[in-house]
Amino acid sequence: MEATRAFARGCDAADPLASVRKEFVLPGGVIYLDGNSLGALPASVPGRLVGVVAQEWGADLVRAWNADNWWTAPERIGDRIGALIGAAPGQTVAGDSTSVQLFNALTASARARSARSVILTEAGQFPTDGYLADSVARLLGLEVIRVSDPYAALRERGSEVAAVVWSAVDFRTGELWDVAGLTSAAHDAGALVVWDVSHAAGAVPLRLDADQVDMAVGCTYKYLSGGPGAPAFLYVARRHQAGFDQPLTGWHGHARPFSMDPGYAPAGGITRARIGTPPMLSLLALEAALEVFGRADMAAVRAKSLSLGDFFIACADDLLAGLGFGLITPREPERRGSHVTLRHREARPLMAALIETGVIGDVRPPDLLRFGFNALYTSYADVLGAVETLRDVTTSGRYREPRFAARKTVT
Amino acid sequence: MEATRAFARGCDAADPLASVRKEFVLPGGVIYLDGNSLGALPASVPGRLVGVVAQEWGADLVRAWNADNWWTAPERIGDRIGALIGAAPGQTVAGDSTSVQLFNALTASARARSARSVILTEAGQFPTDGYLADSVARLLGLEVIRVSDPYAALRERGSEVAAVVWSAVDFRTGELWDVAGLTSAAHDAGALVVWDVSHAAGAVPLRLDADQVDMAVGCTYKYLSGGPGAPAFLYVARRHQAGFDQPLTGWHGHARPFSMDPGYAPAGGITRARIGTPPMLSLLALEAALEVFGRADMAAVRAKSLSLGDFFIACADDLLAGLGFGLITPREPERRGSHVTLRHREARPLMAALIETGVIGDVRPPDLLRFGFNALYTSYADVLGAVETLRDVTTSGRYREPRFAARKTVT
Repeated sequence: MEATRAFARGCDAADPLASVRKEFVLPGGVIYLDGNSLGALPASVPGRLVGVVAQEWGADLVRAWNADNWWTAPERIGDRIGALIGAAPGQTVAGDSTSVQLFNALTASARARSARSVILTEAGQFPTDGYLADSVARLLGLEVIRVSDPYAALRERGSEVAAVVWSAVDFRTGELWDVAGLTSAAHDAGALVVWDVSHAAGAVPLRLDADQVDMAVGCTYKYLSGGPGAPAFLYVARRHQAGFDQPLTGWHGHARPFSMDPGYAPAGGITRARIGTPPMLSLLALEAALEVFGRADMAAVRAKSLSLGDFFIACADDLLAGLGFGLITPREPERRGSHVTLRHREARPLMAALIETGVIGDVRPPDLLRFGFNALYTSYADVLGAVETLRDVTTSGRYREPRFAARKTVT
Repeated sequence: MEATRAFARGCDAADPLASVRKEFVLPGGVIYLDGNSLGALPASVPGRLVGVVAQEWGADLVRAWNADNWWTAPERIGDRIGALIGAAPGQTVAGDSTSVQLFNALTASARARSARSVILTEAGQFPTDGYLADSVARLLGLEVIRVSDPYAALRERGSEVAAVVWSAVDFRTGELWDVAGLTSAAHDAGALVVWDVSHAAGAVPLRLDADQVDMAVGCTYKYLSGGPGAPAFLYVARRHQAGFDQPLTGWHGHARPFSMDPGYAPAGGITRARIGTPPMLSLLALEAALEVFGRADMAAVRAKSLSLGDFFIACADDLLAGLGFGLITPREPERRGSHVTLRHREARPLMAALIETGVIGDVRPPDLLRFGFNALYTSYADVLGAVETLRDVTTSGRYREPRFAARKTVT
């Protein structure tokens, strides 16, 4: 791969997903490589949301729960997500935040292995996952062990492990874990696994059913482009549903919610994982956002995502050499998710200066610059332009201007 | 009060809130008395939501977390709600569902009284509150006691009670509880109180600070008209914030969320009660919906709400006499929230037939018809029209048609 405009143009011209980009609303003058934090706006969303507000809420009012099928939206949208993560229908539900879903799933997993005393999780994971592992452990009297090598930990203490909580794609390094392999190792030890697939869903073709995953949670505002804070999802494999014993026993998960019974009786199937009334505007925006995946095969998405990553790495090798950058994402495509992370001592001011030019990535502590590729709307020209601009911002020294020192960048 | 069109017309003409009705989008041909389940669409919402989607999400992209003040929305919107429930700024946060907020608040309350073993709650409460009390009790090793007379229970077992969970307005009967009195009785026993103000917020002028309430949760899609499944809110009195020890330790409640620290360190103030990334589209719709309260004094809202209830009761007394209806809501205004409930053996088919005519209320088991009044958009003519139509539906026997037998009605 050559870090040239001609090469990028050739790749874009041959890209089978190129036509999908027009199904997103992207502002002019911006190269957007932070869709791994907040996905761009799908063109299908604004019109749908206008209709939901004006017709469903405004005119149908409370009748919309039946007339417009609001009540069944969490399972219906869950199934649409399920199709993208290798889950047969009836095992995925949309709603709440990833934090809340993880709390529910992890508690239920630990309860399903109540004779065991350990939650095994990753050092350096996305923080909320560790915070909630600690919280669940405190409530249930368990111990949390944080490791870098889960296979070694399972060999050493596997008989104690109730549940493993792991991220399919590392939020910092972009490393893709072996979902099938770690799941199998956990099962060999008698443990369950809860996968956090936030940085994989919509970018990596997951196979949750085929890989015998027990439970998974994920967010929908990254590669699924569901909107800011869009409801998360929870996958519970069918074999675990009858025993799924979650702490957040809200009335939407009740077998007969409108009987208003004083005692909790969980619904059958994935419905029992519902909690309270979901935020319908955000949820139905997510549903509209998912439509674009009906016109993009996940294998094609994965192929282009990796190719964009390869191209980014080639451009960085070529254009950023000697400027203090280091690559911390694996070079091997099969070990990557869909973002690439560079290390630089001046990561924060560099990213702030880069964003000012209209090239948007983000930073993660201590010194990481992240660049995410959504195959549905990122072009090869975007990738080349981003690296060229990063080179220019670095070599010009513009990032040393005081106003970039304190600039906050948030997910 | 006379159940006549002339009387209703006179009341509407004299209504100081009459002009506020035009700030809601109400469909023609409908009398909407189910705003206690899903509030009507405020006219301020559609335009705001279009802007949030097109400009903030679409054009500003991830920068919107800072540029458009998304990050601080839970506290900012919390404060707007706080102004309606008698809470000084910095004690209310918006986000998640009422179920999730109640789980957090109740666990934190029980932990703050860890030497005690009982959660005291109401028999016949909204089910999710009881389900979550049971769940918290199971996790913490407590006992849940359900009673109708909390004062008697506090006299008998007060020294064992860690927390009282009670609804300010009963979702079935519409009875308004004495928030100050029960809070004081709980405090005398050394217990904390978590109030569920879902059926009070925006209709009854609550005084959480003045009444020394410890914590409160509530939903925003009823009288606050925040939209279907709009984010709930949590109030934690300032004196309890430093010790607020919740189980849902998501990264948004961390003191330094972007440090991505492996250990949880709670933020100061009400921010520590945040959990995961909130559903911004639903949250910002709620913010727009609250604008109308800037033009309506809560005392005026309460006065009209009670007057509408008085008029409904007068109309029912007059027009429904001898037709099998019974009033189960207290007649005394000071003991009422903002809905009135009738009992009838044929409640379900009657409500189904009534809704078909365009008069919308709802049913609750076993045999209750609920009619809610939102002083911001309900007129006296609405009330009279609803009762007249209910009379006609009943006397005509039309509700006996088979299609009304199985009709589902949902919250």
